[in-house]
Amino acid sequence: MALKLHGVGMSTCTVRVAAALCEKDVDYELEGVKMGVGEHKQPNFLAKNPFGKVPVLEDGDLTLFESRAINKYIAYKYSGQGTDLVRGGDEKERALVNVWVEVESHHFNPAVAPLMSELLIKPRLQRLPTDEAVVETHAAKLDSVLGVYEERLSKSKYLAGDHFTLADLHHMPYLYMLVRSPKASLITSHPHVLAWWEDISARPAWIKAAEGMKVWDAPPS
Amino acid sequence: MALKLHGVGMSTCTVRVAAALCEKDVDYELEGVKMGVGEHKQPNFLAKNPFGKVPVLEDGDLTLFESRAINKYIAYKYSGQGTDLVRGGDEKERALVNVWVEVESHHFNPAVAPLMSELLIKPRLQRLPTDEAVVETHAAKLDSVLGVYEERLSKSKYLAGDHFTLADLHHMPYLYMLVRSPKASLITSHPHVLAWWEDISARPAWIKAAEGMKVWDAPPS
Repeated sequence: MALKLHGVGMSTCTVRVAAALCEKDVDYELEGVKMGVGEHKQPNFLAKNPFGKVPVLEDGDLTLFESRAINKYIAYKYSGQGTDLVRGGDEKERALVNVWVEVESHHFNPAVAPLMSELLIKPRLQRLPTDEAVVETHAAKLDSVLGVYEERLSKSKYLAGDHFTLADLHHMPYLYMLVRSPKASLITSHPHVLAWWEDISARPAWIKAAEGMKVWDAPPS
Repeated sequence: MALKLHGVGMSTCTVRVAAALCEKDVDYELEGVKMGVGEHKQPNFLAKNPFGKVPVLEDGDLTLFESRAINKYIAYKYSGQGTDLVRGGDEKERALVNVWVEVESHHFNPAVAPLMSELLIKPRLQRLPTDEAVVETHAAKLDSVLGVYEERLSKSKYLAGDHFTLADLHHMPYLYMLVRSPKASLITSHPHVLAWWEDISARPAWIKAAEGMKVWDAPPS
């Protein structure tokens, strides 16, 4: 039975999981969640994820939520196929993957998520005004984080070392949006970060997983 | 050679790692970082963690940062001793540990960290006024998160199932502060959350690791 991914093709967290499934060559079925009518806040969905967020992965009788936890499950369960996303065969390599996975969670995501909400989601989807103070605060934080990445990526090809792993992959949905936003210069002003993004975003697995994110490719007319 | 933990005994992230080391019966040496004079922002420390935060773990030539990543390293490296903190022997159990580890990172921590900053750190350490609006916003978020925990802990003894794991342990430093803060009722109003906290905070490893957090035991005179 194929894995079932409950989510939305344009949701950053859903695409984070889809990207891992594609890197691992795992078949899955995307079950759309009608967030516009609040399906994710209904009892049926809350029984799968009590926080009422997408995505949820169902694998037989196992139900998982939180995109980054789902990706670790996929990486370990399918360790024998596709890209080695966790470097589980080497204690030190795995430790460095985990360090940079946590950096994404605790430094990159808290800066980029509010920024993309203000710059893309509020004006384009919710028809709400952008709060420029939030933009400036979080753009400054993100610039500082990407400054550290610039230094790191001047010494190693990927964040955790010589190999593409979850540490890189977890960044991709928001990087896709950032490079299409009015703050794209946060990427283009850091040459090693830009080269890294150009490399990882050309991966066939990413191109397939990010199909639903094309909604961000151009501003609405 | 013993592991070297660079940090501060009252820092939540340092104590998160100390608690894992104690649960695993691993000897370590705590190397104090003089944060009051900005030692963590000096080149020597930034070479270990470019984000300039404690803790850092040194194990021979391997240098790790981010407390939650360090704890996974400890849990896997010392899998043969102490408490099994990751349930690595069972794919599904491990997956559920990872789910609730991510819940701590993406739901609990973003609510509790600003709350403890306003209620304890600013008034007691920094002599700054508490921002009551920040308190109310984050107390409401945390109440909602702990409502999900209440339901979860009515069905399983620990967050990830029948066993104490990193999923529980990662919450402990901020729970210790929360229960000593003016918002302790966020714990005491949820009976299963309170019973969980009373159980896990009685663990000998925790009592040993949290020695430096006694600074929060009573308000300053």
